[in-house]
Amino acid sequence: GQLGRMLGLAGLPLGVDFVFLDPAESPCATFVGEHLRAPYDDPDALAKLSAQCDVVTCEFENVPAGVFDILSPTEPHPAKQALHIAQERAREKTAFEAVGIPVAPWRCVENQSDVDQAIEDLGLPLIAKTRTMGYDGKGQQRVRAPEDATDLFEQLGNVPLLMERLVPFDSELSVVGTRAVDGSKVIFPLSQNVHRDGILHRSEQAHPDQSLQRQARKHFAALTDSLNYVGTLAIEFFVSGGLLLGNEFAPRVHNSGHWTQDGMPHDQFENHIRAVCGMPVGAGSPYGHSGMINLIGQTCGVEDLLGHSDVHIHLYGKSPRPGRKLGHVNVLANSASTLRERLNDIAAHLDRAYQAQAQQV
Amino acid sequence: GQLGRMLGLAGLPLGVDFVFLDPAESPCATFVGEHLRAPYDDPDALAKLSAQCDVVTCEFENVPAGVFDILSPTEPHPAKQALHIAQERAREKTAFEAVGIPVAPWRCVENQSDVDQAIEDLGLPLIAKTRTMGYDGKGQQRVRAPEDATDLFEQLGNVPLLMERLVPFDSELSVVGTRAVDGSKVIFPLSQNVHRDGILHRSEQAHPDQSLQRQARKHFAALTDSLNYVGTLAIEFFVSGGLLLGNEFAPRVHNSGHWTQDGMPHDQFENHIRAVCGMPVGAGSPYGHSGMINLIGQTCGVEDLLGHSDVHIHLYGKSPRPGRKLGHVNVLANSASTLRERLNDIAAHLDRAYQAQAQQV
Repeated sequence: GQLGRMLGLAGLPLGVDFVFLDPAESPCATFVGEHLRAPYDDPDALAKLSAQCDVVTCEFENVPAGVFDILSPTEPHPAKQALHIAQERAREKTAFEAVGIPVAPWRCVENQSDVDQAIEDLGLPLIAKTRTMGYDGKGQQRVRAPEDATDLFEQLGNVPLLMERLVPFDSELSVVGTRAVDGSKVIFPLSQNVHRDGILHRSEQAHPDQSLQRQARKHFAALTDSLNYVGTLAIEFFVSGGLLLGNEFAPRVHNSGHWTQDGMPHDQFENHIRAVCGMPVGAGSPYGHSGMINLIGQTCGVEDLLGHSDVHIHLYGKSPRPGRKLGHVNVLANSASTLRERLNDIAAHLDRAYQAQAQQV
Repeated sequence: GQLGRMLGLAGLPLGVDFVFLDPAESPCATFVGEHLRAPYDDPDALAKLSAQCDVVTCEFENVPAGVFDILSPTEPHPAKQALHIAQERAREKTAFEAVGIPVAPWRCVENQSDVDQAIEDLGLPLIAKTRTMGYDGKGQQRVRAPEDATDLFEQLGNVPLLMERLVPFDSELSVVGTRAVDGSKVIFPLSQNVHRDGILHRSEQAHPDQSLQRQARKHFAALTDSLNYVGTLAIEFFVSGGLLLGNEFAPRVHNSGHWTQDGMPHDQFENHIRAVCGMPVGAGSPYGHSGMINLIGQTCGVEDLLGHSDVHIHLYGKSPRPGRKLGHVNVLANSASTLRERLNDIAAHLDRAYQAQAQQV
C-alpha cells in the first residue's frame, strides 16, 4: 500500500531497490519496484523474496509473524518479536507494563462471567476490544452500563476480548521514532492526533510541556530496546492527568509520522530504510511547525492547494472509495498558531469540496 | 537517466504516473514507471507515448526537436522552440542577445579564413566550440595564439564552429527556475558552480550582491517568456565585471539545481512536473544554506556521510564507470560559512576515499 510506496520513494535515493510482496493488486507499490503477488506465507514467494533481497521488512503489522521464521531461520528477524506482540492486544499491554509504560486498567475476558467480573473490578465505563485484527476503530465496543455488555461476544464476533477502563483523556498523542541496529535512536517530536469515525484525520507536531516529551522519549527507548527492534515504530498514547498512557504500538512507519516528510531533514520512511539496512539513522531539527491532514475517500479540493507553497501534496495513486486513505497533505508553518490556523482552513476547504462533490453524485 | 528518475520520484506524490522513452537500457528510470526502449524518433514508440500520456516532457536537450511535431501536430509543444535553440550554440547566443542577456563577443566560423577574421575582429584569447552536441567540456578548444587555430576544424571533427572571446571571469553562476503555463515563475537563488575536467563537481547557493540576483531573475524571465517555455530551465553564466554573461541554457532540470531537493520546500523536479502538467508552481524560502557535490565515477566514501544529519544522499542506481555521474550529496547548513566548510570537508573526504579505492584496484 501507500506505506510501502513511500518507503520505496524514500529508499531509492539511498541506492536501495525494492521487491514488494503483496497479496492484493497493489496500485501503489508497482511503480517503485517489482511486485510479487502472492499470500504473505506463500513458500515460493518467500523463497523468491529471500533470494532477491538482502533485507525484508514490513509496512503492515498483521503479516503472520511466522513468515519471519521462514525468512530468517537461523536467528530471530529484528521485526519478529515486535510483530508477534503488536498482533495481540493483551501481549501489547503486558509489553507496555513490562517496560514501565502506564496503561489504563485492563484484563482479558473469555466469557460472560469474566465480563461481569471485569465490570466489578475495573468499574464503568469500559471499552471492550477484540485482541487481534482490530484497526481504525473496528472490533471495539463501549460499555457504559452493565446492560451494554450482555451481547458483547456476539457483537464482536465471538472471539477472545480484552476490557479496559475508558479513561477520560485530554488528547491523543503519538511518538514516532527509529531505532538503528546499534541501538541509537532518532525520536521525532510528539504528534497530536485527531480521529474521525475511528480513522486518523489530522496530526500535528504537539507542543506539550517538556515532561510529556521526556516521557515519550523514555517510553520509546524502553520499548524498542526491550524488543531489540530495528526500524521505525510508533506508540499511541492517551494523555490523562499529565501522564502518557500507552494505547497501542505499530512496529512500522505510521500515519501520524507523515508530517516528518516535509517537516524534518530525514523522515520516518528514510530512517526506516536506513535502520533495516544497517545504516545510521538521520537526526536533525524540525524545519518549523508541521502538520498533516489525511485525504479519505476522495481527493477533491486538493488541486486548489497546489497554489499554496506551505502545502505539500502526497497522493498514493489509489482509486477513490469511501473510508480509503488516498493521500495526505503536509503543512509547514513558522509558528504553532499559524499551523493550527492553516490546518483548520485547509480541513474546512477539503470538507466543503467533499460535500460539494457528494451533492453532485 | 537520473534526471528522469528524480522527476519520477518528485511526480509520483503529485498523483502523476510515468512512461519513459529511452533508447538505452535505463537502470534509473525503470523503477519509477514503465520503460519504452526505442529510439527517440521511433514512430511506434511515439504513438504509444501519445496514447498513454497526457503530457510529454524531456530530461535531455538533444532529443530531436522534430519529435515534438509528431507528438503535438496541431499546436507547438511548449518545449519545442527552447529545444531547437538550445541544440545549436549560434541560435542560443542569438536568443540571449535578443532578450538583452549580454554574451561574450562571438561569431560563427565555417572555414579557416573565417577563423583568421574572427581572431582579427575579436582578439585573443578565444575559445572555439562545436555548435551542436557539445557537453561536459567536450567539443571545445582554446585559441591563445594564432598557431593554436591552424587545425581547429580537424581537431573538432570538421563541423561548423563558433568562436567566442575567452572572457576572464570571477565565477560561474547559474540560475534555475520554473515557468508555469500562466507565465508565473519560481526562480531559485543563484548557484555558484565549480567544474572538474569539464564536469560539474560542486554547486552551492551563491550569495552575490543583490544586483547579480536581480540580473539573473530578469534574464530568466525574459528568456522563458520569449520562448513561451513551460517547465524548469537553467541558464549558466560567467560573472565578469559585475555582469552576468550568458554562456548556455538547458531547457530541463539541471545538475546545478539539485540542492533545491533538500534546500527548498518545492524543488526543481516537483516544479517541472507541476508546470508541464498545468499546475501552479510551488515557491517558498530556502531552509538555510545549501550545496551539492557530485559523485562521479565512484560512490566510495558516501556511506560514511550517512551519520551526518546535514547530508542528504541521492544515488541513481547506476553502475560505476569513470566520468559517469552516479549520485550527489546535498548539504544543508545554518550559514554560508558553515556550508562552505562542510562542502570542503566532504569533498576532501570523498577524494580520499576515491584515491584509496583507486590504489586498491
